[in-house]
Amino acid sequence: SPAPSRKIKVLLSQGLAEPVFQASKYGSLWPLPQKVQISEVSFKLSSASFRIVDAKASSAGPSCSLLQSAYRRYYEYMFGSAKKQWGSKNNRRSDPSDLTELQVWITSPDSECDGYPSVTSDESYELTVNQPVAVLKAPTVWGALHGRIYSIYFHCQIISYFPFSETMAMNKINVFHWHIVDEQSFPYLSRTFPQLSEQGAYHPYTHVYTPADVKMVIEFARLRGIRVVPEFDTPGHTQSWGKGQKDLLTPCYSGSKPSGSFGPVNPILNTTYDFMAKFFTEISTVFPDGYIHLGGDEVDFTCWKSNPDIQKFMEQQHFGEDYSKLESFYIQKLLDIVASTKKGYLVWQEVFDNGVKLKPDTVVHVWIGGRSDKEMSNVTAAGYTTILSAPWYLDYISYGQDWQKYYKVEPLNFEGTDEQKKLVIGGEACLWGEYVDATNLTPRLWPRASAVAERLWSAKNVTDIDDAFNRLSLHRCRMVERGIPAEPLFSSYCLHEYKGV
Amino acid sequence: SPAPSRKIKVLLSQGLAEPVFQASKYGSLWPLPQKVQISEVSFKLSSASFRIVDAKASSAGPSCSLLQSAYRRYYEYMFGSAKKQWGSKNNRRSDPSDLTELQVWITSPDSECDGYPSVTSDESYELTVNQPVAVLKAPTVWGALHGRIYSIYFHCQIISYFPFSETMAMNKINVFHWHIVDEQSFPYLSRTFPQLSEQGAYHPYTHVYTPADVKMVIEFARLRGIRVVPEFDTPGHTQSWGKGQKDLLTPCYSGSKPSGSFGPVNPILNTTYDFMAKFFTEISTVFPDGYIHLGGDEVDFTCWKSNPDIQKFMEQQHFGEDYSKLESFYIQKLLDIVASTKKGYLVWQEVFDNGVKLKPDTVVHVWIGGRSDKEMSNVTAAGYTTILSAPWYLDYISYGQDWQKYYKVEPLNFEGTDEQKKLVIGGEACLWGEYVDATNLTPRLWPRASAVAERLWSAKNVTDIDDAFNRLSLHRCRMVERGIPAEPLFSSYCLHEYKGV
Repeated sequence: SPAPSRKIKVLLSQGLAEPVFQASKYGSLWPLPQKVQISEVSFKLSSASFRIVDAKASSAGPSCSLLQSAYRRYYEYMFGSAKKQWGSKNNRRSDPSDLTELQVWITSPDSECDGYPSVTSDESYELTVNQPVAVLKAPTVWGALHGRIYSIYFHCQIISYFPFSETMAMNKINVFHWHIVDEQSFPYLSRTFPQLSEQGAYHPYTHVYTPADVKMVIEFARLRGIRVVPEFDTPGHTQSWGKGQKDLLTPCYSGSKPSGSFGPVNPILNTTYDFMAKFFTEISTVFPDGYIHLGGDEVDFTCWKSNPDIQKFMEQQHFGEDYSKLESFYIQKLLDIVASTKKGYLVWQEVFDNGVKLKPDTVVHVWIGGRSDKEMSNVTAAGYTTILSAPWYLDYISYGQDWQKYYKVEPLNFEGTDEQKKLVIGGEACLWGEYVDATNLTPRLWPRASAVAERLWSAKNVTDIDDAFNRLSLHRCRMVERGIPAEPLFSSYCLHEYKGV
Repeated sequence: SPAPSRKIKVLLSQGLAEPVFQASKYGSLWPLPQKVQISEVSFKLSSASFRIVDAKASSAGPSCSLLQSAYRRYYEYMFGSAKKQWGSKNNRRSDPSDLTELQVWITSPDSECDGYPSVTSDESYELTVNQPVAVLKAPTVWGALHGRIYSIYFHCQIISYFPFSETMAMNKINVFHWHIVDEQSFPYLSRTFPQLSEQGAYHPYTHVYTPADVKMVIEFARLRGIRVVPEFDTPGHTQSWGKGQKDLLTPCYSGSKPSGSFGPVNPILNTTYDFMAKFFTEISTVFPDGYIHLGGDEVDFTCWKSNPDIQKFMEQQHFGEDYSKLESFYIQKLLDIVASTKKGYLVWQEVFDNGVKLKPDTVVHVWIGGRSDKEMSNVTAAGYTTILSAPWYLDYISYGQDWQKYYKVEPLNFEGTDEQKKLVIGGEACLWGEYVDATNLTPRLWPRASAVAERLWSAKNVTDIDDAFNRLSLHRCRMVERGIPAEPLFSSYCLHEYKGV
């Protein structure tokens, strides 16, 4: 291992020895919009005179409480704290004139005000500033909340605090992939099977998500134009399910006797599918989004192989020794169950790799590193839509400015036709929870996830790493000023530092 | 690079798939005392009846406010929060009897109550529990605060909040090495040279340590038995010094003309030494500790080489082309200046490597990784005391349970006589600040620094990594319960989670 040298660190600074950032011509804009034109004229915004109003022709008026709360929120962001550092340089240029009004104009007859954002929502928007009035034009309310190019998924096992969702919105991340249960704990409180969390959560009262918690998360996200896609991963990673649901998991054998430990979901029992049908019927009503993530990754065959009943079933089905056929058998039945609830699904790439028959609208989630470009080629060549996560595992921390690594990835960099490229509907930053809880979640996420957000949000040619450093440094200070402990990119300071522990 | 595989993560769990820790026979003790005997009899502590009192024969009585505040603090720790998880298992064993009193007995005639802990302080202690009374016997108040085997240094560029020092005390870390200025910023507000921070700090008001701030840090530390050793690193890493002190740094040349940039402290001007004499005279009065860290690491010769006046000086002094001689020339003069203030000093290992003449009581700070065992051999063979930091650079983060790496280091693992081994007076965990500020400092430090603390505090044969995992997991929950966002070691939970952002 290399010497822990301070000199190395200084060299890593990419020539940015000065802690004071250079001004970007885009100020502190993050992520950069697909098209942006910076005016030479600067505008003055005064909290006393500035108003956000519904445009006269807008299909969403004062009765659209989603927009009205957004106005209040944005007004607070703009004028809430006493002093702003970002953008101040642009404002100094010349003879400032007052900008007094932002008109929000929803153009579609159906503003979607009371609905949920979906994979097909039009989230585009256009902001034009002509003093004294600026106009924000968007087909639906979702565009008014942020706009859209790629879908940007965001993935996390922990959601303790609402600032989490707030920060996603600040970074224009528009899907929250909620990996809500896993091997270690089953915190989702199911109304149909309450014993799952009673037995399977870390703690049945203090460490669960009640139906009310889940509702609040979804509504909080909706108000910010964020979809909530839950994941209930089976047949592997299910140890915690087995604690509350008898016979759901496969008993492993040691020789001719059960060893007392359990493996993946037992795919040969009818009771398994009865359980799954009831369970996913509940899930389909609790979560309004059109998609459910069904997992399907990393199924370990050791336990299945050890179990004599499974062996017999393999024979009956003529599966030979190919346990991936058994896995596919299970997944196929699960997909049919979930399809009957009228939901679409996402699955981890192994499900595709194993040749399971998938609905055409299935989203294949590519996560295995190394040759993910090859996988992207294969998945899209087969006609499936896909989401890329492989380059953006934020739980893999390392020394230095690793945000640059995330920033430099080009998700469409794989062999394939234009048609194939269009099947890439988004990217997702993942933060698995093995080493993360409320003590370190936020600084580990931000601004590293912000780097992914701009890569997915902005135009392909937005690749100037120095300009990104300058804008992202200011964007991180903006998060800090809003009370979010986003960590520094490099030696630097914010005018208003984080006041935490 | 390897595939980001979730399976890898599970394998990294060291067989600790269960998030619930196993009970250690030492409960949640951290760091383990050198000698500990666990009683089969358990004692009940009740907040109503329990008292901490001065023993009759103690040389420190009610007038020792240091001890009286410590009693209040410990009482609050013991009974402050409603429910405790740690130790509860031990308490369940059998027929508990009340323990009603802890007598604190300072045995030396001079309790040192109003002094400062020093490198020669006797910090030993002995705790005997015999119901209904426990006795804590210690030669001085410092032993009553924690006890001592190794010195444990702790090093940090940022000190924003007092919980920092509090957490050090919880982990029995007894020296705070305050790297208070560096290349990027000079936050120390000097009464003699106020322009240093006026010009050289990130911000002259919001990002400085005033004399009052420094006093509070020192007193807060003293009350917890923690020494505060400041570092003012020269001649390198001094860019921020140059902003407020004209002619202090060497002007670099580009060909025959000054380039406008500056290098290390200019060693050929008398004004440099006049400045240093005044500056360190102030420092020697502001910081009561017997030692000052003088730095001396990573001096880059490029700028010196470029400067014609320096070249001329090299000739006059017959230094040839050996710029390390010039460095030694500077350091020698600096050491003489500081010695005249009656302070001892610590220096980074380069100063020893370059053959500078050092006072016999100089502490050589070994930090360069790779072959630090060789350096430890050399330094101690030359008869100098030393502190080891090389294996404990906490700013080098990586994926996984890296606390184990820190824990497994044996600092005396180098070739040398017993006499040489005795010259190792401590170890130090370093957290350099390039990627750290108030947003992420605490979870990055704890419990990783706790692993170093036990290595340095406990007996050499305390090496059971599984037992350490179990105790450290509970110790980390204890920190969390006290409001300190110490990060998880691995998938797990605390009864009372951190309630932060």
